[in-house]
Amino acid sequence: MERNKLRVGLIGTSERPNEPISEEVKRIAYRFGYLVGIEGFILFTGGRDGVMEACCHGNFDAHGINVGILPSNSVSEANPYVTIPITTGLGMDFRSILMIHTTDVTVMIGGKIGTLLELVSTYQNGKPAIIIKGTGDFADSIDRILVDGRYFDSRKNAEIYFVNSPEEAIEKIKEIFKIK
Amino acid sequence: MERNKLRVGLIGTSERPNEPISEEVKRIAYRFGYLVGIEGFILFTGGRDGVMEACCHGNFDAHGINVGILPSNSVSEANPYVTIPITTGLGMDFRSILMIHTTDVTVMIGGKIGTLLELVSTYQNGKPAIIIKGTGDFADSIDRILVDGRYFDSRKNAEIYFVNSPEEAIEKIKEIFKIK
Amino acid sequence: MERNKLRVGLIGTSERPNEPISEEVKRIAYRFGYLVGIEGFILFTGGRDGVMEACCHGNFDAHGINVGILPSNSVSEANPYVTIPITTGLGMDFRSILMIHTTDVTVMIGGKIGTLLELVSTYQNGKPAIIIKGTGDFADSIDRILVDGRYFDSRKNAEIYFVNSPEEAIEKIKEIFKIK
Amino acid sequence: MERNKLRVGLIGTSERPNEPISEEVKRIAYRFGYLVGIEGFILFTGGRDGVMEACCHGNFDAHGINVGILPSNSVSEANPYVTIPITTGLGMDFRSILMIHTTDVTVMIGGKIGTLLELVSTYQNGKPAIIIKGTGDFADSIDRILVDGRYFDSRKNAEIYFVNSPEEAIEKIKEIFKIK
Repeated sequence: MERNKLRVGLIGTSERPNEPISEEVKRIAYRFGYLVGIEGFILFTGGRDGVMEACCHGNFDAHGINVGILPSNSVSEANPYVTIPITTGLGMDFRSILMIHTTDVTVMIGGKIGTLLELVSTYQNGKPAIIIKGTGDFADSIDRILVDGRYFDSRKNAEIYFVNSPEEAIEKIKEIFKIK
Repeated sequence: MERNKLRVGLIGTSERPNEPISEEVKRIAYRFGYLVGIEGFILFTGGRDGVMEACCHGNFDAHGINVGILPSNSVSEANPYVTIPITTGLGMDFRSILMIHTTDVTVMIGGKIGTLLELVSTYQNGKPAIIIKGTGDFADSIDRILVDGRYFDSRKNAEIYFVNSPEEAIEKIKEIFKIK
Repeated sequence: MERNKLRVGLIGTSERPNEPISEEVKRIAYRFGYLVGIEGFILFTGGRDGVMEACCHGNFDAHGINVGILPSNSVSEANPYVTIPITTGLGMDFRSILMIHTTDVTVMIGGKIGTLLELVSTYQNGKPAIIIKGTGDFADSIDRILVDGRYFDSRKNAEIYFVNSPEEAIEKIKEIFKIK
Repeated sequence: MERNKLRVGLIGTSERPNEPISEEVKRIAYRFGYLVGIEGFILFTGGRDGVMEACCHGNFDAHGINVGILPSNSVSEANPYVTIPITTGLGMDFRSILMIHTTDVTVMIGGKIGTLLELVSTYQNGKPAIIIKGTGDFADSIDRILVDGRYFDSRKNAEIYFVNSPEEAIEKIKEIFKIK
């Protein structure tokens, strides 16, 4: 696949007042977004705060193009680093499914219930997912229900990969899509 | 809540040529559909084959009303026991989300990846889910990632209950919604 | 087609504080809903106020089954005569498209912009529409852009019929679907 | 509004084997896409053939960024000039509504039933539409049902403007959004 055609979705924990995201996890998300920009892939996120904002920030600093698939009809919902806001008006979960439909691979950092929905949807749609370990929440617990440590079920529709860093996530993407 | 207003969603494994569903699981689904009809709740399913069809069959035999939320635009996709086919044209996963939006509680029998998406969506939408144990697949493995055996995450948006039979599922529904 | 399988969509003007709907138009909507119930067809509406509520009221009084395709996730949005509320969470317009997907024929009474969207969608989906004349708004002006008085464009995907009363609308439905 | 934030939707006739689009209309679409690229607005289209492809082609040649909101889940559906394909899997009409939600203004060239749905949706969502006259189909007939030549109904949610060329369409966009 040509690198400027590859659509990479970043999924992960959004921020809540009483659930701050660690600086370390934000650094990982920023770094991943930056690397996606350098590689020239198109980045897709949910366009809002937390891990998504950190990732968009990195991508923005690398002069990348990132698309924010927003739940509401208002661009004011987007974080300031979104290049192309898609105001769906579909609400939180329908828009999550849309985001999976429009990406070729998903990379996961941390993740609560909304992220889990996106991970499950990625697998259901037969697309690969890459999880950066050590980033908390479902990124570190989902393996407990996986078959052979890599599949959600015995149908083995798609593979879930675990990596240790943003750099490894990028390497895995290139390997999967045979990009040099 | 008035019993003829309660909307109960049944989620579970669909059938594939090389993945037959056991007669025992089908009996459980049939029995649950039958009981929902007797109680006068409105039954919602994905309207297709496997566990869904067995459940609709039971409901039909009890003269219940059941709504099938179908992926395609064609009523021919519905099993013969669907009373009201909703032809969404939304595809498999968007329609799963729609089904969760339009039900008050979800009951799960078995379940592969599509069912898992629906269970996660139930929780994300803050609605209770009831899992009938011993029905295979995710019904018997999902507890491995639950917090305190009942929640998908520490936000504890909604509760997931485990029961042993269709009868217990009905009792749990009545308890949750205070129906006598 | 069997009559208890036919899905009839009623589209028309919703009410706004400064835009009351005439008693005459409401009587027509009530009457149509009543007749659909007597015939045993399944009625679909947007489930809210104005023409939709009047139609559901008539259907309810005839002991019909009517499905309300609601924009929000809240059943409180439904008028009191809706039998089966579908809480889509899709917003006003996505849910309008869903309603057209899930009906076999559309009957239109009055109608402002939301109704026009539904009429256009009916035609785009290749389904027949029946307009009750004399009910105001687009019901009485849309013919100005129709080709041969019956089609939206030269592709002639589907036919638009004009009738003078709820009774004629029912007769037209039976004629189209060959129901005796 | 900043020019690189403005999202312009182009709607118009798709091509069918027996319904070729005139070279003149394609030139207009190409020219409009080119000008949108020069101005630095973000272009949105349905991403497929006919008027959409001509417009994307012009935009591509001006080194613009254009987003194609596709009906299916396959990027192969996109014309070769789409920069960012959004594979929605929502089908023809749901995706039309999505496209209107995610644009600030719609420009219409020609247009059959799908385009009419998008024009109606633009107005329903309270957004301005600009129609390039002389491009055939609904672009040249829709005025017959407009109130005061500019509104779909007496609610006057939004305004519909008629212009004579791509250049005038761009001028109108700048005027509406106060862009210098």
